[in-house]
Amino acid sequence: MAAARCPFRAVRDHEDNMKATASSFVSHERLNQRILDLARIGATESDGVNRQALSDEDAQAQAQLAEWGSQAGLIASRDPAGNLFLRLTGEDPDLPPVVSGSHLDSQPTGGKYDGAFGVLAALEAAQAIRDAGIRPLRSLDVVAWMNEEGSRFAPGMLGSSAFSGARTLDTVLAVEDAQGVSVRTALAQVDARLAHIARRPLGGHVHSYVEAHIEQGPELERHGVPVGVVTGIQGKHTFRITVHGEASHAGTSMRRDRKDALQTAVAVIAALGTRLHDAEDIVKFTVGRFDVTPNAPSVVPSKVVFSIDLRHPDSTTLLELSACVERVCNDHASPCRVEVERLSAAPSLTFPESMQERIRVAAERLGLPNLSLASAAGHDARYLHDICPSAMIFVPCKEGITHNEAEYSTPADLTAGTRVLTDVLVDLAQGGNP
Amino acid sequence: MAAARCPFRAVRDHEDNMKATASSFVSHERLNQRILDLARIGATESDGVNRQALSDEDAQAQAQLAEWGSQAGLIASRDPAGNLFLRLTGEDPDLPPVVSGSHLDSQPTGGKYDGAFGVLAALEAAQAIRDAGIRPLRSLDVVAWMNEEGSRFAPGMLGSSAFSGARTLDTVLAVEDAQGVSVRTALAQVDARLAHIARRPLGGHVHSYVEAHIEQGPELERHGVPVGVVTGIQGKHTFRITVHGEASHAGTSMRRDRKDALQTAVAVIAALGTRLHDAEDIVKFTVGRFDVTPNAPSVVPSKVVFSIDLRHPDSTTLLELSACVERVCNDHASPCRVEVERLSAAPSLTFPESMQERIRVAAERLGLPNLSLASAAGHDARYLHDICPSAMIFVPCKEGITHNEAEYSTPADLTAGTRVLTDVLVDLAQGGNP
Repeated sequence: MAAARCPFRAVRDHEDNMKATASSFVSHERLNQRILDLARIGATESDGVNRQALSDEDAQAQAQLAEWGSQAGLIASRDPAGNLFLRLTGEDPDLPPVVSGSHLDSQPTGGKYDGAFGVLAALEAAQAIRDAGIRPLRSLDVVAWMNEEGSRFAPGMLGSSAFSGARTLDTVLAVEDAQGVSVRTALAQVDARLAHIARRPLGGHVHSYVEAHIEQGPELERHGVPVGVVTGIQGKHTFRITVHGEASHAGTSMRRDRKDALQTAVAVIAALGTRLHDAEDIVKFTVGRFDVTPNAPSVVPSKVVFSIDLRHPDSTTLLELSACVERVCNDHASPCRVEVERLSAAPSLTFPESMQERIRVAAERLGLPNLSLASAAGHDARYLHDICPSAMIFVPCKEGITHNEAEYSTPADLTAGTRVLTDVLVDLAQGGNP
Repeated sequence: MAAARCPFRAVRDHEDNMKATASSFVSHERLNQRILDLARIGATESDGVNRQALSDEDAQAQAQLAEWGSQAGLIASRDPAGNLFLRLTGEDPDLPPVVSGSHLDSQPTGGKYDGAFGVLAALEAAQAIRDAGIRPLRSLDVVAWMNEEGSRFAPGMLGSSAFSGARTLDTVLAVEDAQGVSVRTALAQVDARLAHIARRPLGGHVHSYVEAHIEQGPELERHGVPVGVVTGIQGKHTFRITVHGEASHAGTSMRRDRKDALQTAVAVIAALGTRLHDAEDIVKFTVGRFDVTPNAPSVVPSKVVFSIDLRHPDSTTLLELSACVERVCNDHASPCRVEVERLSAAPSLTFPESMQERIRVAAERLGLPNLSLASAAGHDARYLHDICPSAMIFVPCKEGITHNEAEYSTPADLTAGTRVLTDVLVDLAQGGNP
């Protein structure tokens, strides 16, 4: 039916023609309507999204994605790590597929675009390719990775790291949220809800991976450029710090007798702020989570658990900074005991130049200005980079505001990024060496 | 029946005889068994108690208390602020009653004795007086005040402050817990559960008030003395501090652009620690509660709400320290906005010497060593002190550990304190001018 609407029939010796054809079938309306429709699942009062990993809302979003995929003639399957795939089957289904996508989970007070855009852009690309009557040589898998955000289950990128083999499935399934619910338990509930979707094994060979995403920084908007060619991803180390103190009465216990876990945590964080401070403002140091026990106004806290998110584009510098964390924690532990756990340690990485060049070429063919820039945020592409040639396409986001209900990208920019993605995916799926 | 078991029939001209009689009817076994039985309601895994105000467990504890009261021939009633009374009716029911008790609510990781002892000691005293065949001139009301702890609903002492008129009933009912549940809503549920208990109006004339309590400090144990005569209560000011920042991405937002509510909160608390530090270690400064929004590892926090509990035995010094809080918060607010709310401001107080003397005399008649000491912790007696002659009796608690599941007092000390309380209550109820 799609072929009937299309005046061209894809043949491999008209490759350039085909690529132009595919991106011209991207539907601006369909893409942007789906972004708004998806944002209703887990919508917050302030126009944001709360759709944390493996929640009811996340399961509902996955079901919606599978339904859209089915309507577009794609075949859905889920793996044991909770990743969801929608396949546009290629002419040679035995060849490793091209994969494209991102994630559907959000921060607790997140926006409509982080993750969702990359998944829906890949879906739109697959649908445009099909609408254009193209049957590529390789299969194309649209993917939604499980728990990229790491807000409910820390660390993030659990699904893509299990897929790539960077983490074992057992390690991933054993991760627990703040209420002690494991990924295993939460995933079993999602599995039950999505039992109508076929299962596939974890992992497998991948030809190449391309992820579209909002920039989450201000550069593209500042330069008035709709397409970002991502050169690589900034390194990131994460920690969980537990301060063990002793509960006592706020009115009766003397300062010298107290083991106040909160005061120790405050001293540690203040000291880390001083130690990690750089005049150039390149280091990113964040304590995003901070949980107090028993958390009652007139009880000296017995325990504090807090997170550290530490990033730097230079891997050597990041390793040096990371090494300070344990030392500073120990130096300021007294009179409590401070436990330091490093949850993840991802170095900075550079995407293959050949993959970056494909994006640049595709954008230029479409007459879209583009800019090369590094990603300060982490993405699932980090783990795919370990197993196949990978790349990322950025689109502008307003004032760089993200992980915030006010996150916003213009429909025109989202469509432009999706058109570039579509042509890059056709190029890769037709068998070009990445 | 009690009279039948008692060889003496109470007559007012044998006052001394009667007093000795009443305390000798205190049952060591019954008192300590009830303390253990009550501690089963809301028992924690670590042998402590989690029985927060107006919770299911609190309602269950109140029902249990009313049942014990009923078995002892006392008449239960509840007032619109959720306070529970058990009356031993006096010969002249029109005279203002003597009141004695404490509270049944606990901290989230509290112990078995804080509050519970004072209520059960008063119940035991009433039962001993009855068992002794004494019908005092004035009625004796055993009371369990609503929400002394202030852990679920801040500030604490809501029930006694409503009773005394220090806070209006509407103010008390409008207080909300962290989940936005108001006292009004939670109390309505408890009301429904305790619908079998008669209602009484709020407040009323009180002849005198005596509260027994564990010391929550180490002095009595250190001196090996079983009875503390409380001279007064240390002043306490409480605050709620809200830091308003802006959520942003931990990997992409520059330090200079961030409005990190947690880093501002840390700076404020560190500065307060320095400003409020006294070499003598008399100031009590506690941040017991600290809630972060959205509380996710890779999101710069948009909001932090934390509590301040500030105490000092000298009211003038306390006022000076308290005035610093707002200044320090404002000095360290940038780049966020810091909102300071003072929730309560109780000056230090001294109980009437005549009331202290009654306790001293009663203890000496029983041959119990005693010590005069101030209370560093706040108690419901603070608000009763505003409307009638009030006093407190302390018993030792192990190593001063309290607001902690390890809280402990010996059964012998609890009984000794209860015997003193019993004789003091008989003395007051027989009409002695307090």
